[in-house]
Amino acid sequence: MTVGIIGLGLIGGSMAKTIKRYDKYKVLGFDKNYEVTHKALDQGTIDDELSDDNLNNCDIVLIALYPQATVEYIKRNCGCFKENALVMDLCGVKQSIVSPVENLALEHGFAFIGAHPMAGMENSGYDFSSPCLFDKAPVILTPYEWTNANDIKKAHEFYKSIGFGQINVSTAKEHDRIIAFTSQLAHVVSNAYVKSPAAGSHHGFSAGSYNDLTRVAKLNEDMWTQLFLNNASALSDEIDALCVRLQEYSFAIKDNDDVKLKQLLKEGREIKEQADNV
Amino acid sequence: MTVGIIGLGLIGGSMAKTIKRYDKYKVLGFDKNYEVTHKALDQGTIDDELSDDNLNNCDIVLIALYPQATVEYIKRNCGCFKENALVMDLCGVKQSIVSPVENLALEHGFAFIGAHPMAGMENSGYDFSSPCLFDKAPVILTPYEWTNANDIKKAHEFYKSIGFGQINVSTAKEHDRIIAFTSQLAHVVSNAYVKSPAAGSHHGFSAGSYNDLTRVAKLNEDMWTQLFLNNASALSDEIDALCVRLQEYSFAIKDNDDVKLKQLLKEGREIKEQADNV
Repeated sequence: MTVGIIGLGLIGGSMAKTIKRYDKYKVLGFDKNYEVTHKALDQGTIDDELSDDNLNNCDIVLIALYPQATVEYIKRNCGCFKENALVMDLCGVKQSIVSPVENLALEHGFAFIGAHPMAGMENSGYDFSSPCLFDKAPVILTPYEWTNANDIKKAHEFYKSIGFGQINVSTAKEHDRIIAFTSQLAHVVSNAYVKSPAAGSHHGFSAGSYNDLTRVAKLNEDMWTQLFLNNASALSDEIDALCVRLQEYSFAIKDNDDVKLKQLLKEGREIKEQADNV
Repeated sequence: MTVGIIGLGLIGGSMAKTIKRYDKYKVLGFDKNYEVTHKALDQGTIDDELSDDNLNNCDIVLIALYPQATVEYIKRNCGCFKENALVMDLCGVKQSIVSPVENLALEHGFAFIGAHPMAGMENSGYDFSSPCLFDKAPVILTPYEWTNANDIKKAHEFYKSIGFGQINVSTAKEHDRIIAFTSQLAHVVSNAYVKSPAAGSHHGFSAGSYNDLTRVAKLNEDMWTQLFLNNASALSDEIDALCVRLQEYSFAIKDNDDVKLKQLLKEGREIKEQADNV
């Protein structure tokens, strides 16, 4: 089976390296930065360069670009996919991808399923890509209502076959709503957190909790700007609601209200324990 | 050298287990929960029970209680320490401890230095204590202006001798200001973070960033209520300032202002990179 990958950054590069562990797949890859494509070829991360000439050999096409570039790529190439090819983007937002692609997929007869592999790191680019990034990671699939069950099964089997863990099927809207909280809000909070004037003095005054809270402050602002603006409503709602919750703690602290503060902290602890034990 | 430890929870228990790795120290310990004291004795975590009869044998006394109980313990026992004993509390706040203890120390002729070992975990209690919790951890010492240099040196050598890493000397006020940001704010944010209605749906939709942001949401609300209220001004200032910063992101997202949003994210990334590289 031939898999084509467009974009060989952290996600696309890791996907190529992951798939190449399994002999049943041939991997074609392309990055707009030719040095990256060349390095991936040299290192055996891809078997061949993906081009206009061999795109229609690909049974599965994975698009590992930023959101805007993903939609643009599909618009440009929607007539060139192999018949019955399964095309999947790997973006962290889904509604802004699957909506504009829907009519193209219907018109040109390729299967399109949004996919979000739930793994990443604070560094980006091919040089940080790893064949282990996705080991046992969850992946979320967002097919259309009309998507053929066989194509969903094919996507499911593909991710299982290369070592992913839990495979969830969701609507794009539900995906974006939950991801606004689990991933996007975490990046916003972490990035805003480090801007306290006290951050410059943290050495020797910080431990695990500080490291954990600020790890993803180091982010790729070009990519995350697109991801955030493509999920603006859900994310800004999460930010605003968090601020309202934080103010409750602040008020209780200023009022020296130990009963209220303890109650707030207890509620958070219990929710965390319940959420972890589901 | 004999070290007495009052309170054998996560911090006191870990301190006892840490010190017991070194033959030069004899460890006496006490926990108000007799089962814990008994278990610590059985497991060899302490050499003997610390009591009113042998407190004045201790060259170093470590008080690993909550803030209020720490001050109460010192008030009750300030006449019973060995002459020239070095007494240190291990609380996460310092002004509210060292201020009320100052006159007692001067009056009764014992050396008192606030100490904050910078390590912990989301679980509490003796059963989670570990001889490795403090390996290479920083510790912050907050002596008085009049504290004898020899006593600071003695504290320094003690923590070095049992495996701590960086040892910092600070004023209690500076300690509390920085800790409000590096530790207390992290716990408040994490605890407030998990209260989104989306938290119940995080399984399969979350990865490292969510895990990191919410790890310390599971906290001991009795202890943290005291710590927060003993540092109310610095902590509420940090919470309020974080909310102001978060609103900047929210506004940029609602305005679909990619230039502003990218700038905000870039600033956070750069501060994180600079703070890590100091």
